[in-house]
Amino acid sequence: MTVGIVGLGLIGGSFAKAYHEAGHRVLAFDTDQSVFDFAVLSGAVDGLLSEESLSSCDLILIAVYPSAAVDYLRQHGAHIGPKPVVIDCCGTKRLVCDACFPLAKEYGFTYLGGHPMAGTHNSGFKYATPTMFHNAPMVLVPADHNDIDLLSRVKELLAPAGFGRFSITTAEQHDEMIAFTSQLAHVVSNAYIKSPTAGLHKGFSAGSYKDMTRVAWLAPEMWAELFLENKDFLMAELDTLMANLRQYQDAMVHNDLPGLVRLLDEGRKRKEEVDGR
Amino acid sequence: MTVGIVGLGLIGGSFAKAYHEAGHRVLAFDTDQSVFDFAVLSGAVDGLLSEESLSSCDLILIAVYPSAAVDYLRQHGAHIGPKPVVIDCCGTKRLVCDACFPLAKEYGFTYLGGHPMAGTHNSGFKYATPTMFHNAPMVLVPADHNDIDLLSRVKELLAPAGFGRFSITTAEQHDEMIAFTSQLAHVVSNAYIKSPTAGLHKGFSAGSYKDMTRVAWLAPEMWAELFLENKDFLMAELDTLMANLRQYQDAMVHNDLPGLVRLLDEGRKRKEEVDGR
Repeated sequence: MTVGIVGLGLIGGSFAKAYHEAGHRVLAFDTDQSVFDFAVLSGAVDGLLSEESLSSCDLILIAVYPSAAVDYLRQHGAHIGPKPVVIDCCGTKRLVCDACFPLAKEYGFTYLGGHPMAGTHNSGFKYATPTMFHNAPMVLVPADHNDIDLLSRVKELLAPAGFGRFSITTAEQHDEMIAFTSQLAHVVSNAYIKSPTAGLHKGFSAGSYKDMTRVAWLAPEMWAELFLENKDFLMAELDTLMANLRQYQDAMVHNDLPGLVRLLDEGRKRKEEVDGR
Repeated sequence: MTVGIVGLGLIGGSFAKAYHEAGHRVLAFDTDQSVFDFAVLSGAVDGLLSEESLSSCDLILIAVYPSAAVDYLRQHGAHIGPKPVVIDCCGTKRLVCDACFPLAKEYGFTYLGGHPMAGTHNSGFKYATPTMFHNAPMVLVPADHNDIDLLSRVKELLAPAGFGRFSITTAEQHDEMIAFTSQLAHVVSNAYIKSPTAGLHKGFSAGSYKDMTRVAWLAPEMWAELFLENKDFLMAELDTLMANLRQYQDAMVHNDLPGLVRLLDEGRKRKEEVDGR
């Protein structure tokens, strides 16, 4: 097949490498000419994704920031035509899907929202790997949840990426879930590392410190945009977390050992319920 | 050598298995007779650590809750004698060391505080492994930081456990560091999983959710005791974290994109400073 990729960052670059390794033809576009040139030299990209070549693709993956993804489809939507399936890879879905479903209708191309749940704290094509999505979840937001033909076609088109699981959902539900599973984690991790104690942790830290601060290392501009787009759900999660943290604070202030045991046991039980043994 | 182990839980059991595998003689004591019997049957323990056998040990590891560790040495200190090096393995050090340094002096045995920085969310001998401490940090709190002979002897005695690094520190500094690197991580993780959204995370979660909630699964009684013993440092860390989280909240409330980018970039830089690339 021919895959078109818009944006050769970590995500777009990893798709390019995955499809290239699986023997497919990869066309790509990046606003940074030197990144595009490097991707071509490295062999992962076969040529330019232009207005002329858009309509020849089987799959077009838009792997840029949310607002840029919408801009791209607004600008180039008229050239896509009926053949390609277009999927964006943005981390929030309401803003992108609300803008792109009407564009798809207007210009007559096939579009669904997507969110590949993978990444690293490093950004850019040079950190992209062909195995980035192996066994990762892929969230899909179709305009019509009953379009089984489209969904099976999408799974086939995405097979070379090696996803472990597909979740079909709405933009609303995606954004609510992602506020908890990913965005809140990034806020907490980024705040956690700001303790003055952090500078001296070596020799006193093991897995829990490492896990808690891993995603503190993030791309600030991208995450800030994602957070503000998903502000309602993210702030609700942050409020919930802080209200829960205050309960432990209260128990400690009052030296309330049974209360503290109860709070910790509630969390332990919840984790056991949710993730089993 | 002969190693005496008090408490055959996850930590004591893992030491028993490590020393047994390295060909050493392991004597042990546990208040639960069935755990002791099982450890003997499994081959990891050679016999009972009794008042008679205490003084024949080269190394005695006390792997029980802090208050129980102090009680044990108060009760049995008179029988230890000059030969063994006694190390407790408790997660807080001021309470234990403040009580045990004087006991060591009174009864004439050699004692230092210790904290092996390893574990799993499962408790008990059956989850103990001989490789539990491989490459983990071991914190040591000696009464006299200049006693180089004792410290090299301790490193030799602990060699079969396979620690990756020894940190020699004070009880005060240990407790301050551990409040940040471990205790706060457990509080946050335990609170994080309490979001109502958690129940539906599957298909929408990847590494950041997994890392953030891993240690939510903890032994409530043990951690509640450790938290209250280290309340001053832990509450200070919790206050710092919550004050930092409120800054992100404020930036979001005011749709302050540059402010949010700046906050996230500060955290990113801090993580880079602290843990390098």
